[in-house]
Amino acid sequence: MMGSSLNRRSFLRATVGAMGAATLEGAARRPNIVMILCDDLGYGDLHVYGSNLETPNLDRMAAEGTRFNSFYSASPVCSPSRAALLTGRYSTRVGVPRVLFPKDTEGLSLDEVTIADTLKKANYATMCVGKWHVGHTAKYLPTARGFDEYFGIPYSNDMTPRPLLHNTTTIEEPATLETLTPRYTEQAVRFIERSRNKPFFLYMPHTYPHIPLAASPRFRGKSKAGLYGDVVAEIDWSVGEVLKTLRDNQLEQNTLVMFSSDNGPWFQGSPGRLRGRKGWTYEGGMREPFIAWMPGRVPAGRVSETVGSLMDIHPTAAKLCGAPLPAKPLDGIDLWPVISGKVSSVERELMIYFDHWNAQCARWKNWKLHVARYNTFAYGPSPSAGRINLPLARPELYNLENDADESYDVANEHPDIVRQMTARLEQLLSGFPGEVQTAWAETKARASSGSTGALPRAKP
Amino acid sequence: MMGSSLNRRSFLRATVGAMGAATLEGAARRPNIVMILCDDLGYGDLHVYGSNLETPNLDRMAAEGTRFNSFYSASPVCSPSRAALLTGRYSTRVGVPRVLFPKDTEGLSLDEVTIADTLKKANYATMCVGKWHVGHTAKYLPTARGFDEYFGIPYSNDMTPRPLLHNTTTIEEPATLETLTPRYTEQAVRFIERSRNKPFFLYMPHTYPHIPLAASPRFRGKSKAGLYGDVVAEIDWSVGEVLKTLRDNQLEQNTLVMFSSDNGPWFQGSPGRLRGRKGWTYEGGMREPFIAWMPGRVPAGRVSETVGSLMDIHPTAAKLCGAPLPAKPLDGIDLWPVISGKVSSVERELMIYFDHWNAQCARWKNWKLHVARYNTFAYGPSPSAGRINLPLARPELYNLENDADESYDVANEHPDIVRQMTARLEQLLSGFPGEVQTAWAETKARASSGSTGALPRAKP
Repeated sequence: MMGSSLNRRSFLRATVGAMGAATLEGAARRPNIVMILCDDLGYGDLHVYGSNLETPNLDRMAAEGTRFNSFYSASPVCSPSRAALLTGRYSTRVGVPRVLFPKDTEGLSLDEVTIADTLKKANYATMCVGKWHVGHTAKYLPTARGFDEYFGIPYSNDMTPRPLLHNTTTIEEPATLETLTPRYTEQAVRFIERSRNKPFFLYMPHTYPHIPLAASPRFRGKSKAGLYGDVVAEIDWSVGEVLKTLRDNQLEQNTLVMFSSDNGPWFQGSPGRLRGRKGWTYEGGMREPFIAWMPGRVPAGRVSETVGSLMDIHPTAAKLCGAPLPAKPLDGIDLWPVISGKVSSVERELMIYFDHWNAQCARWKNWKLHVARYNTFAYGPSPSAGRINLPLARPELYNLENDADESYDVANEHPDIVRQMTARLEQLLSGFPGEVQTAWAETKARASSGSTGALPRAKP
Repeated sequence: MMGSSLNRRSFLRATVGAMGAATLEGAARRPNIVMILCDDLGYGDLHVYGSNLETPNLDRMAAEGTRFNSFYSASPVCSPSRAALLTGRYSTRVGVPRVLFPKDTEGLSLDEVTIADTLKKANYATMCVGKWHVGHTAKYLPTARGFDEYFGIPYSNDMTPRPLLHNTTTIEEPATLETLTPRYTEQAVRFIERSRNKPFFLYMPHTYPHIPLAASPRFRGKSKAGLYGDVVAEIDWSVGEVLKTLRDNQLEQNTLVMFSSDNGPWFQGSPGRLRGRKGWTYEGGMREPFIAWMPGRVPAGRVSETVGSLMDIHPTAAKLCGAPLPAKPLDGIDLWPVISGKVSSVERELMIYFDHWNAQCARWKNWKLHVARYNTFAYGPSPSAGRINLPLARPELYNLENDADESYDVANEHPDIVRQMTARLEQLLSGFPGEVQTAWAETKARASSGSTGALPRAKP
């Protein structure tokens, strides 16, 4: 069995180059894609990332797969991050620059192509289970954006009303929070089981560990790390169930499973040694765990230092599945060569950290440039409460290679890097929507006029 | 030589018990005390505490001595922390609840006894070299508070005017910042050399790494971690010079040298994995490196998990030097039994974390209770800018043993600990000045009325 399946794959791979991928691979069993996304999980919340929390299933997933140390959400807050994941493009290009609230009637621009659109067009069965949050009126819901089926709360669990939807129908309101993770898991498992004979894409954005936290009785009080720990343990269990279902159905060698989070931890949760939390463009707000798993095709027990992004999921999945990419240029890149261990790293464009319309930071190689940040982090009910974009009087530069927690500004010591990165940032921003360019012009004007209120700087 | 000196010590120790320490030990050579204090150095800024900064002299000091993992400044900001160190009592008892500014004419209450008063009375030569910051009008300056001599800037280097004082005389204004650390070091070295034949106490509170940062040309640009790294490297060098001077004068076995900082890092600098920075009562604002060194009497290469505090310096030094303690009860304890390795830990009273008059947190054993905190951390020029004490609707509890970064609230899981700690906190606060009790009453009232604006909590 195994031998003949491998032979068929080899044959296909040999012919694909000449004849075009989509049609030919469609005849074979193309890989399934499972993307599991947490909400507000910190870089330091998993055992394999140095936490004292017990996450045995994710430990095992990492031991059997590859994890990344420098993987980024595409935004420090929820909706923009998800919009970027789904499209492979910066949130500021796709109509979701900020968190959406129940009163909002807009969502992810309708002329954007989601990863589900891409895979559905390639005849994948597609399902979204969990928190959507890129538009909750009918035309923006998952079933209108490439998903055959949807089950979940369409926005954050701290917003009201809190409907639990099946496709576009409210089946419970407000949704019972305590049993949400097992119900999501059951839906995911059933989808995998009934899709086992065709290629499928499962997008599973968990509602937790976003507050208000809730865990089912089986996990409540069991973690020794409070309710947050219980909730993470239940998500870990859920991941275990998904992987077990794939194994039980002999799908594990043909399914790429990826695990990450939409942004850093909010009030509870740990960013590990990183600086900042949800809402900040310091690393703690945007650097996330990322684990990729596909036994036999993704190297086991490997740790990659390559920079990755949630924006890479769309192009990576499309390439792996032989599905044509959308016409609009993507900001993400195909990360499969790194995930599969074919190469140890890839060159990538300077990566921009946006807060709303404001470009606040950029990463290029091991360097992180800061040009603006919040003035405060408000402990209010919303991540946007009290946020003000504060241009820095002079850019700061951090060498993430030896200073991951952004503690030692080396801008004075590396003026060339600052100049190059600022120039490239400026060049890239000129291709963004008008709101981004206006915000950038204001950042520059306020920085140069000194009306920044920014942190006092050492004399040069 | 060594043999006879040891014999004499043994003889003295045998007779001290019966006859009273102060008089008899006064006849022998009593130990010298050197207390080196940094300004705004983070828990994660030293190589031995996990930093990538190179601090070879402090590495060696730690290798030859004992360092603490749970040592606390007595306040998250400068002046109160120093007031507590000097007196051994909480800042809220001694008239310095907040940072002092140049316009302030008050200082450390004149009826408080400083560690220098205590040791001077026991015939120690005493000198303060560096940043004072507990009162800068004549009657509050070091020479009026037990020090024979003073050399330094009397408050922070970001305040103006910035006089460099010798005793009470301004010898330079504004003080040149680039050469400050070597000039402090030269003063310290000279003091040690000229005091070598009598017991001495050197208090050396560095001006750095408080901003504005400055390093001498020898260190400028050498650290690979920007100016902050250069500044820390120069302080490390300075520590090396002090220890070398002690060795060169055969004083190392009779001098207890201690190294710490007044509060966590501000804009630059690393709190390591801890949460929060300067100004916060999260661990990152108050947990500090602490290294004790006295070859032959302090165990080499040891790491202690015992909770220590800057308030312990006064009682520890007094006891070790056989000097009578002041009449007022101290909040600090004699830490010598732990430092010297005679015992591995000591019981201590619940420790309170104050912000100004507000009791915000408490530590007892491995538990940290939060009852209030800032609403914001302002990136303004002053740590007090924009700070508002925000009572929490319900206390939070963290188990520092497995959650040093205060990420997982376990208050719901340990109601007894919360109750016990709150009750003990309340009991202790009743012995504090009226301002503390008023602030505490307000904290409780606002917490129970729900007018907190505090973070959203999980449902019970």
